[in-house]
Amino acid sequence: MTATARTVRELRAMISGWRREGLTVGFVPTMGALHDGHISLVELALQKADRCVVSIFVNPRQFGPTEDLDKYPRQLAADMERLKAAGTHLAFTPSVDEMYPAGFATKVSVGGPSQGLETDFRPHFFDGVATVVSKLLLQVSADCAVFGEKDYQQLCVIRQLSRDLDIPTEIIGGPTMRDSEGLAMSSRNAYLSVDELGIARTLNVILLAAATAIAAGEDPDSACIKARSAIGRAGFSSVDYVAARESDTLAPWQKNRPGRVLAAAWLGKTRLIDNLEIPAI
Amino acid sequence: MTATARTVRELRAMISGWRREGLTVGFVPTMGALHDGHISLVELALQKADRCVVSIFVNPRQFGPTEDLDKYPRQLAADMERLKAAGTHLAFTPSVDEMYPAGFATKVSVGGPSQGLETDFRPHFFDGVATVVSKLLLQVSADCAVFGEKDYQQLCVIRQLSRDLDIPTEIIGGPTMRDSEGLAMSSRNAYLSVDELGIARTLNVILLAAATAIAAGEDPDSACIKARSAIGRAGFSSVDYVAARESDTLAPWQKNRPGRVLAAAWLGKTRLIDNLEIPAI
Repeated sequence: MTATARTVRELRAMISGWRREGLTVGFVPTMGALHDGHISLVELALQKADRCVVSIFVNPRQFGPTEDLDKYPRQLAADMERLKAAGTHLAFTPSVDEMYPAGFATKVSVGGPSQGLETDFRPHFFDGVATVVSKLLLQVSADCAVFGEKDYQQLCVIRQLSRDLDIPTEIIGGPTMRDSEGLAMSSRNAYLSVDELGIARTLNVILLAAATAIAAGEDPDSACIKARSAIGRAGFSSVDYVAARESDTLAPWQKNRPGRVLAAAWLGKTRLIDNLEIPAI
Repeated sequence: MTATARTVRELRAMISGWRREGLTVGFVPTMGALHDGHISLVELALQKADRCVVSIFVNPRQFGPTEDLDKYPRQLAADMERLKAAGTHLAFTPSVDEMYPAGFATKVSVGGPSQGLETDFRPHFFDGVATVVSKLLLQVSADCAVFGEKDYQQLCVIRQLSRDLDIPTEIIGGPTMRDSEGLAMSSRNAYLSVDELGIARTLNVILLAAATAIAAGEDPDSACIKARSAIGRAGFSSVDYVAARESDTLAPWQKNRPGRVLAAAWLGKTRLIDNLEIPAI
């Protein structure tokens, strides 16, 4: 049985009850349209804590004016079934007014890892993410919160935010779930036609080739330029970026440091992102 | 006996111990240079909670480049004596590096009540305040935190911040303490010469006349202009603002609503602020 809270008051009442019993709490923030990737994060939270809270909130403040806020997939009944099957204890499904009541006036901005990559193409994205994640983390007051490595830059920004503001919740990254051909699971995959799906599945293969070449000694800029061309040849409409970065700071990758290759590319009106570790030699 | 914590780790260890005993915690953030006004906030926190934490941290991020960060009064030994005498349980005295370690990159910005007044003259002030207060509130995780009404706009900004980010600490305003002639107590009064002190003591008298005139029906703009002139005639070097505002939003005051008259003025190199309630008729 998965309970539901629509307000912060209901949420906190439920969590206070658990706290009085001495139970620990794990938290998975989502925008709904749940797939196996989300469920793997719920499973990770359940390994780390006694109780698992999942929020479903499509945050208007992280969408740009021309982005897909209106058509972002919403399927609450199906999501609730998946959460129940996964053993989620509480779904927190606040309204936009509950999160941003009239007169709301605060913004959280994170520098450091938010610079470049997504920010070059979605300039207000991380302010929107940092503000809503600050709120959610403080509403839930969990022992740990799990974010997917699929949104790798977002994970780095949230780690920075949590450290900088002293938010007393441990931030945990969950590995990216992929389909049988390696396509990173994403709610936005639902937008893809069958043909586009075939093209989308080349992205991880191209990034793996780049990461492997970089690990083998190829110049990272050159490897990323080749990957960019390969993504175009595979049938993507355009490429926002392919970049090799340090795993923690997202500064440009330096040899022998933990690194990641990150990319964003468009298939028609659908924007996909993915990233892979640069393997240690 | 007042214990001391220099790091967030030490602070949280002490507070966790209290929480295990079921004790409630009150918090008073300060920049040190403690006077009777601060001590009244400590006393208020001790009325509200079982344990009282006072932080002493001169926050560089709320001072502008030409402001008085370097000469801001620092007197830790005397402050500790005062805190001990007042029954403070824990003094939190972090270093700048503890609060802002290398790589720190997050900023909290509050709109709404931060607009105008102080912001017109200290444009980065409230970003610095909002960021450090967010950190302090989350480091301490108190049940309540007490801020002085002397810094009235700051109190409104912190209430907004706390509400917007769902910080689970009740924000309490403590009344302004005044000397026998009504001068609002302030650490910056220490900068004043004997002559300047005489002039400073006229500020509250002039604001009281304005607030009383507005309550009696005088046009608030006209009353504020008169007060501005009176402050100049009293010997202040210049006036940053005198304004009549609504008590909660700090929007321009409307008849029959709770209101405040707020002012900032200079005496030589010393900037003083004060504010008074517009009495209800």
